[in-house]
Amino acid sequence: MRLARIQGDAGPVPVVQRGDRWEAVHDLFADDLEFTGESFPVGQVTFLPPVEPRVVLGMAHNSGPTDRTQPPQAFFKSPRTVVADGDPVVLDEGIGPVSIEGELAVVIGRRARHLAPGETAAAVLGYTVGNDVTAVGQIPLDDRLLQAKSGDGFTPLGPWIETDVDPADLGITVIVNDEVVARSSSHALAWSLDEQLVYLSSHLELGPGDIVLSGAPGTGAPVAPGDEVEIRIDGVGALRNPVRTGPARAALPTP
Amino acid sequence: MRLARIQGDAGPVPVVQRGDRWEAVHDLFADDLEFTGESFPVGQVTFLPPVEPRVVLGMAHNSGPTDRTQPPQAFFKSPRTVVADGDPVVLDEGIGPVSIEGELAVVIGRRARHLAPGETAAAVLGYTVGNDVTAVGQIPLDDRLLQAKSGDGFTPLGPWIETDVDPADLGITVIVNDEVVARSSSHALAWSLDEQLVYLSSHLELGPGDIVLSGAPGTGAPVAPGDEVEIRIDGVGALRNPVRTGPARAALPTP
Repeated sequence: MRLARIQGDAGPVPVVQRGDRWEAVHDLFADDLEFTGESFPVGQVTFLPPVEPRVVLGMAHNSGPTDRTQPPQAFFKSPRTVVADGDPVVLDEGIGPVSIEGELAVVIGRRARHLAPGETAAAVLGYTVGNDVTAVGQIPLDDRLLQAKSGDGFTPLGPWIETDVDPADLGITVIVNDEVVARSSSHALAWSLDEQLVYLSSHLELGPGDIVLSGAPGTGAPVAPGDEVEIRIDGVGALRNPVRTGPARAALPTP
Repeated sequence: MRLARIQGDAGPVPVVQRGDRWEAVHDLFADDLEFTGESFPVGQVTFLPPVEPRVVLGMAHNSGPTDRTQPPQAFFKSPRTVVADGDPVVLDEGIGPVSIEGELAVVIGRRARHLAPGETAAAVLGYTVGNDVTAVGQIPLDDRLLQAKSGDGFTPLGPWIETDVDPADLGITVIVNDEVVARSSSHALAWSLDEQLVYLSSHLELGPGDIVLSGAPGTGAPVAPGDEVEIRIDGVGALRNPVRTGPARAALPTP
């Protein structure tokens, strides 16, 4: 099943795809979806971010098998960084080098805390395409990653959520200005999604709409203002975002 | 002016104190408060967290003048950690040593990005009492602080927001089991609130209801299950929370 949030005349509308229509529902997270009767033709809608997360997490050093030699670790991104398919990634003047990272994004479906290994799938609503934009030039200045990870538009998500896909081995393709710059698979992640959710839920509560960016298994690429970025995840979808220039920053306090 | 959110029969009610009544309003963040006509007697209400933040930030190494030798740095806490006056702080079995930190919490009132020095006050709605609970035993295991900072109930806030207080030199008192264990002032912070908001808004967007925990200027203290904690900030209020035991964690993935 494919779930999304689209722009309606009176605000955001949660929708489910059936054939060539997006059909409106009351709540994407309900156990039994209730349809409102409203519907929209596929191909003629404006997507919003598929969820409004309270918590956005990214897995750190989760790019390949050698990262498994360290314990799992994660970081927060501001939920205010979440934007939709088509929205710009904004690079403030002076922010330094920036990379995009194409990632399978896990959408949490219900309250999850202290999940046991092998029992995490029930907490997952589905999967969407995530772009974990990272100002890599800021990492040496701030190892806690706040400066690197939470610029405007730094977490494109979408266009929709796929609920019935097996996430174990999904191809991930990163395209910049119509050129394929990276190709890998969720299979190459150091820590499986099950392991990630056991780890995260052992330390904090997850809830409906929260996002886990599962890591970039060789799916990063440098970008600059003017670039057009596309992340494709096989069986999920394609997420496209332009990169734009933002304002210069205020004079910072210095020690 | 004193603002709060209280438990009403039909859900949360934003309120403003006038004399011996809490008077309901439509929106605490409106430029002109609109009163609904409903009111509640002071002393007979149940406080909810005074805001529902999307972003909760804490200032790192901001405990005193020597911290000014390093650039400012901050970390995220999960907004799901926010609890009200009276709610428990829950310590999972095996989490190790835990400290409370009594902190002046800044409540953001409007969208704030790239704030200039000396111009941050207009972005602030007011101030509340914050307790930045920290599992200090987790810090050596995770220098990004996710494991240390986002347990259940790890960010008590409240009971209310004071809008008309000068935050420059407010006494902070930390009381555990009716004994004063620390006493300091917001004046002892390494970075002023203005400097903090310039720093943070240069890297990310802040918005209505977001929280900045401004740092613990010698206002930390170890706690254990069974303790009763009170943080008093002169001119703002007193925030009381019990410390309780939580469940053991699931077996974690190991390298």
